[in-house]
Amino acid sequence: MSKTITIFGFHAIQAQLDCAPEGFVGVFILDNRNDQRATQITAQFEQLDIQVIKANKRQLDKLTKNQTHQGIAAQILLPTLPNQDELISFVSRFEHHALILILDSIQDPRNLGACLRSANAAGVDCVVINKDGSAPINALVHKTSAGALNQLKIFQVTNLARTIKALQEENIWVVGLDGATDTAIYQIDLTAPIALIMGTEGKGLRQLTKQCCDQLALIPMQGNVESLNVSVATGISLFEASRQRLN
Amino acid sequence: MSKTITIFGFHAIQAQLDCAPEGFVGVFILDNRNDQRATQITAQFEQLDIQVIKANKRQLDKLTKNQTHQGIAAQILLPTLPNQDELISFVSRFEHHALILILDSIQDPRNLGACLRSANAAGVDCVVINKDGSAPINALVHKTSAGALNQLKIFQVTNLARTIKALQEENIWVVGLDGATDTAIYQIDLTAPIALIMGTEGKGLRQLTKQCCDQLALIPMQGNVESLNVSVATGISLFEASRQRLN
Repeated sequence: MSKTITIFGFHAIQAQLDCAPEGFVGVFILDNRNDQRATQITAQFEQLDIQVIKANKRQLDKLTKNQTHQGIAAQILLPTLPNQDELISFVSRFEHHALILILDSIQDPRNLGACLRSANAAGVDCVVINKDGSAPINALVHKTSAGALNQLKIFQVTNLARTIKALQEENIWVVGLDGATDTAIYQIDLTAPIALIMGTEGKGLRQLTKQCCDQLALIPMQGNVESLNVSVATGISLFEASRQRLN
Repeated sequence: MSKTITIFGFHAIQAQLDCAPEGFVGVFILDNRNDQRATQITAQFEQLDIQVIKANKRQLDKLTKNQTHQGIAAQILLPTLPNQDELISFVSRFEHHALILILDSIQDPRNLGACLRSANAAGVDCVVINKDGSAPINALVHKTSAGALNQLKIFQVTNLARTIKALQEENIWVVGLDGATDTAIYQIDLTAPIALIMGTEGKGLRQLTKQCCDQLALIPMQGNVESLNVSVATGISLFEASRQRLN
């Protein structure tokens, strides 16, 4: 089922406008903003025949639950995310070596959004998230993804173990990022058709997910801090694949 | 001059306790928390002869400015950060190939903290920040760094261009991450004594900083999003150095 979320701030709204203008349900701008930035974005909406409604500060504060909205907010419709069958159908049509990111139960919306941003910059084919264990796609995910949410092909699956098996049947090598191995990510051939799985910070992959992987890999770390932020670990792993593929 | 900041949440306080317990000025715990986590940390403080003061929710809310404190907060003393002279004296004693991170004007405290976390995990020798253009080290930087702030050697300099020149005189090759080049970071020999400079998201390096670099490098990106988060770009660049040094 489609759902509506409220996004706010010029950057988030511009990103939505650039990529998925059909998603706007309502756009609200502060009634006393007459500066260039406000005028420009209003003009863009008007060109697309999308009405921009003047609102006062109290209304915008209420709509955005008192977050820093910069005087602009919008309600957008998020399309329903495609499921496992659609994923496999999508992947089976590839004529290149797949690069897929699977996010196993990333519960912090900020981290989820940041992972999507890293994934988009690394040029993944698609992202797979598990429906029950992950943060729902909300305004915070949208904001942190810096526009990537609109750009990426994202599939939402109910049973990650089953999805991994289905990907393996499509000859995709599934690599789980986890500390329980001696193999550095750099030692793995990531030019092959690959799905990389990232787990939650600190905890790592769930046991069942780990068992389904073809191989585990780690990012060799120094320093005394527990772990990298998951979006940073995602960036390092995906860009290692991207580096290998450039050669 | 030293300054005092308020940190909160079990994770941040545990990290401080593990690394720099001498920094505590005052520790406050919610008067009705008698669970294992609260008892354990209280015992650790007592062992170190640091007094833990019982506080009510209203007092903790006020102390932390209504942030999510989990019933624990502390005031800590941040030592004065050493300056350029101390940096050069530190670097000149190296018997290994330096890996230094320079952060040019990272103004968002969350990004600054996240960069420090990535830097620590990558095992840098030290981090250099510019005093005037950067976010001040505050509670949010402390929290986002996930303990790295206490672990890292951080130098604060007043004139970054002058510091870069001084590092170059120590035979350190200064690489600026910036889009205005065709050279990928992967093409650069990062096993040499290196300082990597990261600028702010979107804007990149300041003009003067860029001119001082020995070389510019970019992370080749795909996708349609403007840029990577600066802490992710920092992670990718530093771990590329780390990967090359493992070989």
